[in-house]
Amino acid sequence: MTKRVKIYSQGEPLAPWREKIHEIIFEADTPAGKAFDVVLIGIITLSVIAVMLESVAAIKREYSFSLDIAEWMFTGLFLVEYVLRLISVRKPLLYATSFLGIVDLLSILPSFISLFHPGAETLVVVRVLRVLRIFRVFKLAEYLGEADALMKALRSSRKKITVFLYTVFIFVVIFGSIMYLVEGANSGFTSIPKSVYWAIVTLTTVGYGDIVPQTHLGQMIASAVMIMGYAIIAVPTGIYSTELAKAYRESSDTSNTACIGCGDEGHDDDAEFCKYCGEKL
Amino acid sequence: MTKRVKIYSQGEPLAPWREKIHEIIFEADTPAGKAFDVVLIGIITLSVIAVMLESVAAIKREYSFSLDIAEWMFTGLFLVEYVLRLISVRKPLLYATSFLGIVDLLSILPSFISLFHPGAETLVVVRVLRVLRIFRVFKLAEYLGEADALMKALRSSRKKITVFLYTVFIFVVIFGSIMYLVEGANSGFTSIPKSVYWAIVTLTTVGYGDIVPQTHLGQMIASAVMIMGYAIIAVPTGIYSTELAKAYRESSDTSNTACIGCGDEGHDDDAEFCKYCGEKL
Amino acid sequence: MTKRVKIYSQGEPLAPWREKIHEIIFEADTPAGKAFDVVLIGIITLSVIAVMLESVAAIKREYSFSLDIAEWMFTGLFLVEYVLRLISVRKPLLYATSFLGIVDLLSILPSFISLFHPGAETLVVVRVLRVLRIFRVFKLAEYLGEADALMKALRSSRKKITVFLYTVFIFVVIFGSIMYLVEGANSGFTSIPKSVYWAIVTLTTVGYGDIVPQTHLGQMIASAVMIMGYAIIAVPTGIYSTELAKAYRESSDTSNTACIGCGDEGHDDDAEFCKYCGEKL
Amino acid sequence: MTKRVKIYSQGEPLAPWREKIHEIIFEADTPAGKAFDVVLIGIITLSVIAVMLESVAAIKREYSFSLDIAEWMFTGLFLVEYVLRLISVRKPLLYATSFLGIVDLLSILPSFISLFHPGAETLVVVRVLRVLRIFRVFKLAEYLGEADALMKALRSSRKKITVFLYTVFIFVVIFGSIMYLVEGANSGFTSIPKSVYWAIVTLTTVGYGDIVPQTHLGQMIASAVMIMGYAIIAVPTGIYSTELAKAYRESSDTSNTACIGCGDEGHDDDAEFCKYCGEKL
Repeated sequence: MTKRVKIYSQGEPLAPWREKIHEIIFEADTPAGKAFDVVLIGIITLSVIAVMLESVAAIKREYSFSLDIAEWMFTGLFLVEYVLRLISVRKPLLYATSFLGIVDLLSILPSFISLFHPGAETLVVVRVLRVLRIFRVFKLAEYLGEADALMKALRSSRKKITVFLYTVFIFVVIFGSIMYLVEGANSGFTSIPKSVYWAIVTLTTVGYGDIVPQTHLGQMIASAVMIMGYAIIAVPTGIYSTELAKAYRESSDTSNTACIGCGDEGHDDDAEFCKYCGEKL
Repeated sequence: MTKRVKIYSQGEPLAPWREKIHEIIFEADTPAGKAFDVVLIGIITLSVIAVMLESVAAIKREYSFSLDIAEWMFTGLFLVEYVLRLISVRKPLLYATSFLGIVDLLSILPSFISLFHPGAETLVVVRVLRVLRIFRVFKLAEYLGEADALMKALRSSRKKITVFLYTVFIFVVIFGSIMYLVEGANSGFTSIPKSVYWAIVTLTTVGYGDIVPQTHLGQMIASAVMIMGYAIIAVPTGIYSTELAKAYRESSDTSNTACIGCGDEGHDDDAEFCKYCGEKL
Repeated sequence: MTKRVKIYSQGEPLAPWREKIHEIIFEADTPAGKAFDVVLIGIITLSVIAVMLESVAAIKREYSFSLDIAEWMFTGLFLVEYVLRLISVRKPLLYATSFLGIVDLLSILPSFISLFHPGAETLVVVRVLRVLRIFRVFKLAEYLGEADALMKALRSSRKKITVFLYTVFIFVVIFGSIMYLVEGANSGFTSIPKSVYWAIVTLTTVGYGDIVPQTHLGQMIASAVMIMGYAIIAVPTGIYSTELAKAYRESSDTSNTACIGCGDEGHDDDAEFCKYCGEKL
Repeated sequence: MTKRVKIYSQGEPLAPWREKIHEIIFEADTPAGKAFDVVLIGIITLSVIAVMLESVAAIKREYSFSLDIAEWMFTGLFLVEYVLRLISVRKPLLYATSFLGIVDLLSILPSFISLFHPGAETLVVVRVLRVLRIFRVFKLAEYLGEADALMKALRSSRKKITVFLYTVFIFVVIFGSIMYLVEGANSGFTSIPKSVYWAIVTLTTVGYGDIVPQTHLGQMIASAVMIMGYAIIAVPTGIYSTELAKAYRESSDTSNTACIGCGDEGHDDDAEFCKYCGEKL
């Protein structure tokens, strides 16, 4: 998102009125822009709630009509907004193909599709993704910075998490198959995929209880899986905490003092000389 | 709480007898004050237990009468205490509108309301909040300090947690809706709100098992949700640990004393000489 | 445990034969002593397994007799051992009243009690506590050191954990009561204690599913509880990780270099002068 | 794995053609070698999926025949591969007895066994273990390095985890037995082993709900177990995070370069001058 914002904040000027629209719709730094975002998020939330309520049989029976109207009003509003966005950006295609651009489109289409294929309107719920814009508003409150910190930590722990998930994956397949052989069909372990599903439910400590081992051996193995899951749960947390702590240290320790020699920052708290130019700090 | 205590410990003196009452009721530093708090917490605990027992059908049938008496005794005591508090503070309104002041009031009212609206007496359970005063007593044992440390960490991780919760919120709405479309009404996913409820139950690894996916596709998606929840659980922990570690580092070792020789800080609590220049601290 | 060991390793000598017995039974540093411990732990494990098997109806029907014999054999062995321990220590009373001494006694009594009160023999399972001696053997492998590290971290996070548990306690009482009022008896929330039990089951993400909210409002509140529990789970972990990290840093950074001046250890990695006597390191 | 790779990359040369095969099959650094691994992993994955599908009654009824053919094709391929591996290594026995060598063998045998003992083919699922080779391919992307980091942290926290698991083990046996005595057979706690199983299910916060306390006392004890489990879950995470953080610190910033001037270490990776004496590094 930040990226896209950058793209539009640089480069040769648009026509003033488009510039104005752009500023209101895309930026969140001006009062107008922020107001727009706040209102938008409000409408998005309302429209999502409407869709959710419509799915409740009792409510639909009652307020079906008014909900439909609301539904189309929201669709109309979003359609207008979408067009304005297309107009007010320098590279409409770039926007249309951007993640948020696609989300914006997807949050309009279903309503129209539902005209031909009833039921499709539920897909409108994808609108909730538009709430992601909320971080734009947060940015002013430096929330986005936090989000970046979280993201950075996630990115740098990506590899580890992948390795971890792979191990978990192999783990559940193996134990799922074992349980399938041990328990047999009598107690819900009707197939390996289902047993793997059980293994995941157990390892993640969700434990629905819809599939449960009945035999003594099965329960022993299950216990082993649980204990492991219990110990394994430590791994991603450990990974993430560490990464986050690092991301932190780099950001925090840093930036207090800038070297007089090279103006470089990022010195440790106990540094007495600039580590880049050797200048006394 | 600390704040309020401060407010009352400064400023022009009250009438000696009010001063005395104030010291006993509000302060926890004097023997009398501490004794009062300890007794009070004991009574509060008893009254809460009484309310809880009263809700147990079997017990109520047996001891209904004695429980009522106890109930009114407690109410009486708290009423007296509340009045004394109002009298003994310089700004009664300030106290009455403070969090604990409101709690104190709410822990008396229900009993009287129940005279006109039977059943309301259950609300008396709000009294348990009064137990929060216990931290006042703890303070002497520096427990409050710890509580502050925890709070500080929570505060500084507030933004991150918010961003996190937002993401989780969007996450459960999306997956709840998907499951609603995939599973349909046949297996408990009767509406989007209910499906979102399921998503929360699953993501948080609570896993009641009251709503469970039946279709193969549904179980696959559920598995994905669980694994994610499993990985996601790392985030708040990571955030909090990091913040706590920071809050620690700042409070504990560093920043107390700067060396006279080199002006360097970051010496351990037990350091007697600067570890950088050897100067006596 | 370490403490007790210390007590016996200092002071005026026992009679040589008692000294010998003591060394074998209490110490784990000599080959004989270690062998004894290993055998003992083996027997303890066997006796515990025996008790567990005896509780399985099917097995009891089959091997009732042989299990009884085994049971009495184990009791006899432990009785002899207990007597030897009493004989071989300088202060029998001190041992008899020590935690492990009481456990040793409790692991013998039930068998005899069961002669008069059948069923009491199940209490023999307390013997499993004797397995704690295993750490004595581990000590050789420096496992005890690790255990100490864990313990130290637990001790220093004791206060925080207490504050945390208190908050959780208040939390579950409040929400338990609310759910009791919201859900009513129709869906398992028959009393406040039961509702509090539900709140604990939910907050800890155990989620049996034996008590589950039925109303929409109830499910919303439950969701809130879960999300909170999800965020709250971060706290103890954060606390503990931090404490452990500290316990670590102190132990690791430390002890590499001893000051030449005062022979004191525990200097940071980046220290250039002894922080106790100012001597150049 | 890394170890084995080393073994084969040193020492006197093989016959060129065997060398070639070896390079393709065992190494993952050459294009050919990597391509081979990627294809292999694809086939393994397919074969595992085939086994899983075959276990689904509905699918088996439909595609039994084609699945059998696929099954035998995969077996054939793996057989050929296994033979090639034996040929192309200097010490066939060393490979055959290595972990991956055994896995390779086990992933062929079941199919043949199933000729005499139908049903054995399910064991083929052990093939999923072969996917572990995937880390070989990852290595190029430095994933293996990450895996090593995780492993190192796991190894160094091995002792602590052991102590922890021991405590948990004793814990569940004790509480399992207590619950067996408290609850009795009426509510699923039919034997101590089953009660211990319950204790594990509860402590790990899996909470199937297949065995649930019915009595008030039982529910109190259960609550205690849950809260403890909730607090205990912090321990492995804490241990692991700390170890990982350490493994990190050691590997990342410190210990690479010592200053020529003051011999001080602990400089950041990007440091060009000693931060203590300003000497050029």
